[in-house]
Amino acid sequence: MTWAAGDDRTMSIAIIGGTGDEGFGLALRLAKAGEDVMIGSRAAERGHAAAERGAEILGLGSGAGTRGSLGGTSNEEAAAGSDVVFVTVPYAGQADIYRSIKEALRPDAIVCDTTTPLATAVGRPAWQVVTPWEGSAAEQAKALLPKQTRLVSGFQTVSGHLLQDLERDMQGDVLLCGADAEAKSAIGSLAEKIHHLRWVDAGPLSMARIVEPLTAVLVSVNRSYGIKVAGISLTGRDRWGTP
Amino acid sequence: MTWAAGDDRTMSIAIIGGTGDEGFGLALRLAKAGEDVMIGSRAAERGHAAAERGAEILGLGSGAGTRGSLGGTSNEEAAAGSDVVFVTVPYAGQADIYRSIKEALRPDAIVCDTTTPLATAVGRPAWQVVTPWEGSAAEQAKALLPKQTRLVSGFQTVSGHLLQDLERDMQGDVLLCGADAEAKSAIGSLAEKIHHLRWVDAGPLSMARIVEPLTAVLVSVNRSYGIKVAGISLTGRDRWGTP
Repeated sequence: MTWAAGDDRTMSIAIIGGTGDEGFGLALRLAKAGEDVMIGSRAAERGHAAAERGAEILGLGSGAGTRGSLGGTSNEEAAAGSDVVFVTVPYAGQADIYRSIKEALRPDAIVCDTTTPLATAVGRPAWQVVTPWEGSAAEQAKALLPKQTRLVSGFQTVSGHLLQDLERDMQGDVLLCGADAEAKSAIGSLAEKIHHLRWVDAGPLSMARIVEPLTAVLVSVNRSYGIKVAGISLTGRDRWGTP
Repeated sequence: MTWAAGDDRTMSIAIIGGTGDEGFGLALRLAKAGEDVMIGSRAAERGHAAAERGAEILGLGSGAGTRGSLGGTSNEEAAAGSDVVFVTVPYAGQADIYRSIKEALRPDAIVCDTTTPLATAVGRPAWQVVTPWEGSAAEQAKALLPKQTRLVSGFQTVSGHLLQDLERDMQGDVLLCGADAEAKSAIGSLAEKIHHLRWVDAGPLSMARIVEPLTAVLVSVNRSYGIKVAGISLTGRDRWGTP
């Protein structure tokens, strides 16, 4: 069954690499918003441990509740069981991760890639980037995924630190790139379930070439101003979302 | 005499390519804020005509007033007479313009390059960019300028349309890149004289590789949402400016 914008049915969500800052923060915020989230990790037991830690932070009971749920397993199993799959892994491991989950993905899955090709992948600073052969990490993901996978790129400007700090409201906008407008709206609707988060349609997948490196600018800004939560917001309209 | 941050003395300002949307808008806003601005153009008479048009829009008298002044001349003369030189020309003409003004620039001039290497330079859309050999238009400018010129890159995310619409408040932030912290603060102070405009230190000049292409994202966003004034604002701090 394909999820469509405006659909009220809850989507099952996997966070691949959900033990990292961005992935774990996203899992916390989405589960807090009432979603059912499965944290994937290379080792199932680490996924499980992260889910237990998250459930404790959120005060989730073991049964189903009104506040969503958190589970943990391997990346492959998480991918296989989900309508929406966030991939939140460092660039150095991105290709391997896609190779490992692509057989498991549902044919109609929506994949949201959050990777930035930070130069840390090659032992250089996080305020520098490298250029993937395809132009962006998102386009590299596209090259590795089955043709029918509905790919969206986003969340590169959303602070993993802030996502995990549940006492603070989110700030800034999620910039989404991709060819599939409905898939962007689906990911955008999930973003909007996180209090104070908005989303902006930044254009086709190739725009990720410009959006992804913003992570490096935000790392630079964080360093200069001694903060950890710099983000980006669009100005020029009061409301964004589906154009 | 070198201008320093915190200096109350008014700086003389040149806008090279000041007849274009971004340059003319910047000239209007800075003159409105009380600055003395010289609009440069390839042909002195066009610079002069733009200044007359601007003075009429602003209701500036022919004499000196409290609301700044607007003059017009050739790019070379404007550059020769100014402490601060904004270069607001399309990428296709950027190299030629720098070659034409570099002899004229004062040794201690602060140059603020606002160029984005939009693909329009090669007959492709404004929501795409080309990559300059040096990495960014700002670094190309550095390669063409005398070594001692104090170069700052900025204003690529500030809508030329909004700058010219004096009835509306500005929105968004000016992201400044460059090696010279004091020069960034000087340009930042000028930006702040424009009501509602803030500035953020985005790091060294090489960060312009990431900041410049944001113009193309904003062009894409403008098209998608049917607006002309999309901009970028940083979140994570209430105040920015000098770090």
